[in-house]
Amino acid sequence: MDHRAQAIGVFDSGVGGLTVLRALRDELPHEQFVYLGDTARLPYGTKSAESVVRYALQAAAALIVRRVKALIVACNTASAVALPALRARHADLPVIGVVDPGADAAVAATRSGCIAVIGTEATVRGGAYQRAIAQRRPDAEVRALACQLFVALAEEGWTSGAVAEATAQRYLGPLLLPHWAAGAADTLVLGCTHFPVLRAVIREVVGERVTIVDSAVTTARAAHALLRERQLLRAPAMSPGATALAAMSFLATDNSERFAAIGARFLGSAIGAHQVALIDL
Amino acid sequence: MDHRAQAIGVFDSGVGGLTVLRALRDELPHEQFVYLGDTARLPYGTKSAESVVRYALQAAAALIVRRVKALIVACNTASAVALPALRARHADLPVIGVVDPGADAAVAATRSGCIAVIGTEATVRGGAYQRAIAQRRPDAEVRALACQLFVALAEEGWTSGAVAEATAQRYLGPLLLPHWAAGAADTLVLGCTHFPVLRAVIREVVGERVTIVDSAVTTARAAHALLRERQLLRAPAMSPGATALAAMSFLATDNSERFAAIGARFLGSAIGAHQVALIDL
Repeated sequence: MDHRAQAIGVFDSGVGGLTVLRALRDELPHEQFVYLGDTARLPYGTKSAESVVRYALQAAAALIVRRVKALIVACNTASAVALPALRARHADLPVIGVVDPGADAAVAATRSGCIAVIGTEATVRGGAYQRAIAQRRPDAEVRALACQLFVALAEEGWTSGAVAEATAQRYLGPLLLPHWAAGAADTLVLGCTHFPVLRAVIREVVGERVTIVDSAVTTARAAHALLRERQLLRAPAMSPGATALAAMSFLATDNSERFAAIGARFLGSAIGAHQVALIDL
Repeated sequence: MDHRAQAIGVFDSGVGGLTVLRALRDELPHEQFVYLGDTARLPYGTKSAESVVRYALQAAAALIVRRVKALIVACNTASAVALPALRARHADLPVIGVVDPGADAAVAATRSGCIAVIGTEATVRGGAYQRAIAQRRPDAEVRALACQLFVALAEEGWTSGAVAEATAQRYLGPLLLPHWAAGAADTLVLGCTHFPVLRAVIREVVGERVTIVDSAVTTARAAHALLRERQLLRAPAMSPGATALAAMSFLATDNSERFAAIGARFLGSAIGAHQVALIDL
């Protein structure tokens, strides 16, 4: 059979990965997508590495039985800790995480070599961004900070206003102070898929001098490149020719109403609760 | 055997219920406690009712095999949706939730009959506080508001400062405006076990005129009364005579380090990670 016609599987702990799906749709308009949000067990960001690896393998299996041709791990926590296990289990499948593309973009952007990374507790504790950046530029100075409240702000939809501003100031003010060995940070990696919706308020605090790396966009480009290399890109003629939303299907492990309501904020377009199928992992 | 010597089981989705355990220790200093935090599946507050009932039954079973003489459901979400199922499954065991004691205290405190309740999304959506208050005072006007960001603030330890103040103002300012049919709210129920650690900043916003009902304290009193009635109170002579912490043991379903670190804030005393046993549910 022609693998090119198959859908791309995208998986996240919840709705945050919909920012990655949005970037994938923009980058790959002819593709179809199956998005799985493990809403019954979110957030991964405060779970142990062992649990996250187990959850990621279960989510991948659920997408693979739905015949996906590639797997995008749109969750920083899972990308940070579960990618080796996923690739070992599914050696035949292209598996793309968000950490490597984010590290590539950060190293390309920085001039001073001082890179700040913000993410969940698990992503920061796991050190995957720190390692990925050090591999690419060993002399880089990387500081990572867990910003759990950004997750809650994004889910609440409080992406501007006094609370968002005070939160951004409290997290990022000290992080970006010019006390770095090599000068000052000139690059900030949004190492959590929830954070792009807070981009404007983050920009206000960090100023124009700092490049903000959104790994959703860089991951979509990496996925495009890998699918082309493996000759797995869907031809435009295979396109269903329907609306963008018709090319996406959604799976959640709990609370499809909340998935649809909150998810729309991250996807940038409405999702009907009836479009979200509940599955058990 | 003498059931009085058995421990009291306390269960929550995570560490928030430690505010209830703290109140229980103060109220019942001769008792022993086994606390179970279902940290692998927290938060319950954004999960569906079906999932929360299933989790609560599993947690209760884990405590019952550890021979507890009573079960305190120290989680508002689980109290709101899972109490009937728990009592049906374990008819012989005293089961106490936090909602009924909170409703009792609110009805005792209010003069205007206007009661505001704040909690998680699931607690508010489930309407258990609203129903419990209406049963006790049918003419009461109850308004409930989900305050998810308070949970994140409590876990981050940001219990004072600009972010906590702006968040409390944004949630509680509109809620407590004098647009209530019967005048103005004079009672605020902290319908989530995370919220007592934010009491000072909540007090600043609501002013001295509003009575704050902390269901941890009222639940501890209700537990005391029920145990006395069932003749299940441990006699002082049975007391281990050791430190308060020795009379408590802790179980978690994931990430015992985080349980110990964050939990200390809610319990009000240090917890060693080695004191927290990991179990599977």
